[in-house]
Amino acid sequence: MGEEKGVVLLDFWVSPFGQRVRIALAEKGVDYEYKEEQDLVNTKSELLLKSNPVYKKVPVLLHDGKPICESLIIVQYIDEVWSDKTPLLPAEPLARANARFWADFIDKKVYECGTRLWKLKGEEQEAAKEEFVEIFKLLQGELGDRKFFGGETFGFLDLALVPFVAWFYAYETVAKFSMDEECPKIVAWAKRCIERESVSKTLSDPNKVYDFVLVLKKKFGLEY
Amino acid sequence: MGEEKGVVLLDFWVSPFGQRVRIALAEKGVDYEYKEEQDLVNTKSELLLKSNPVYKKVPVLLHDGKPICESLIIVQYIDEVWSDKTPLLPAEPLARANARFWADFIDKKVYECGTRLWKLKGEEQEAAKEEFVEIFKLLQGELGDRKFFGGETFGFLDLALVPFVAWFYAYETVAKFSMDEECPKIVAWAKRCIERESVSKTLSDPNKVYDFVLVLKKKFGLEY
Repeated sequence: MGEEKGVVLLDFWVSPFGQRVRIALAEKGVDYEYKEEQDLVNTKSELLLKSNPVYKKVPVLLHDGKPICESLIIVQYIDEVWSDKTPLLPAEPLARANARFWADFIDKKVYECGTRLWKLKGEEQEAAKEEFVEIFKLLQGELGDRKFFGGETFGFLDLALVPFVAWFYAYETVAKFSMDEECPKIVAWAKRCIERESVSKTLSDPNKVYDFVLVLKKKFGLEY
Repeated sequence: MGEEKGVVLLDFWVSPFGQRVRIALAEKGVDYEYKEEQDLVNTKSELLLKSNPVYKKVPVLLHDGKPICESLIIVQYIDEVWSDKTPLLPAEPLARANARFWADFIDKKVYECGTRLWKLKGEEQEAAKEEFVEIFKLLQGELGDRKFFGGETFGFLDLALVPFVAWFYAYETVAKFSMDEECPKIVAWAKRCIERESVSKTLSDPNKVYDFVLVLKKKFGLEY
C-alpha cells in the first residue's frame, strides 16, 4: 500500500454504505477504479483485509494507496479533498452538526433494524417493522416540507439515507408493509433524489436487492 | 428553546462523553453554564428531554438555545465555531479521517465493553476483559511512539479517549486486571494528557467513579 496513485474503491454492489461513497464520488466528478469484492461471506480480498484490518468491511477508499474506512468518514474526506465542486456538508457549523447527527442516527438504526425485518418472523418481525417505521417517521419529521434534508440542495444527509431506498422493496416484501403508506414524504423525497444522475446511476435495482435478500435468508437457513 | 443566549452544557459528572465536551470547551477557553442532571435513571430534566428527544442522553450543548447532541459531533461543532484557538481536529483531510475513524471506534467499543466488565461475572467477564484489552492494544498500536495520537499536539482523538482513563481504576478493580501491565504505553500517554489543565480539571476522580460503578451494580441487583 501507499504506492499506487489515484482513487480506488473497494466495494460490494448492494452495500448501501458503498453506494453513499459512489454517489459522493459521482457528485464530485472524481474518476476512480471500482473493485468489487467477489465473496464477502467466504473469501475477502487480501487488499480489503490489509486496508481495513479493524472491521474488514467495505467500502474502503484508497487514495494514492492510503486507505480510508467507514462510509460517512469517507464521504467527509471526499468533501474535504474535492472541496471545489458540489459541497456535500452544509457550510454553517449548526447545520453541519445537524447533518452529522441524523447521518449517525441512520448508521445506528436503519441497517440493523432492516436486517431484523428479513431475519425474524412472527411477533419479533412485527416489532422490527414498527421500529423501522418509527425510525423513518423521525427522519420524515426532520425532512419536513423541504425538498432535500439540507433545504434546496442535495447533500450529505440525503446521500447518507438514499441508498437504503433501494432496499425498501425487499423490506416491504419480506415484512409486508408499504413505505408509501407509512412515510409518503420519504418516498416523495426519494423520487426527487433519484432524479439526480449521481443517485440514479448508483442505486441498486430493487428487484436485485430483493433477490440478494432471499440469498441471504437461504444462507442463514431462514427459508420458512 | 432558541431564546437563551450563550453556552449551556447539560451533563452528568461521571459521563466520559460529557467530559469530552468539557475538555473541548476548556481547550477553547469558552465560558459556559454547567447544568448537572440530578437523576438520569429516574427523572431526566425537562430541558434534556426537549433538547435531545431522540436519545434523551447527556451531553447536550445549547448554543444560543440551539441544542447539539452526541459528544463527537458537539466537539466538532465546538472546533468549527471557535476555530481561532487550539485546533482539535488536524488540518489535513487524511489525518482528519484517521482521527474520526479511531474516535468512532472508541464510541463503538469502549463504553459498551467496559459496562460488561462490571455487569458480568465468571467466564463472560473474562471474555469482556480480553476484548477490553484487545481494544486498547489496537489503540496503543495506533498511538505508536507518538506523544499524542495526532503527534506532538493534544487533539480530537486524545480528547475522545482520555475520559475513559478515569474509569480504568473501576474497570481494573471489578474485573481484576492492570492496564499498566496490559497497555503501558496507553497509561503513559494518559499521564501526558493529564498534565494538561483542560484534562486534569475535567477528569473524574477514579475513586468516585469506582463508587459510582458500585452504585450501578447495586441498582442492577449485581451485588454478588
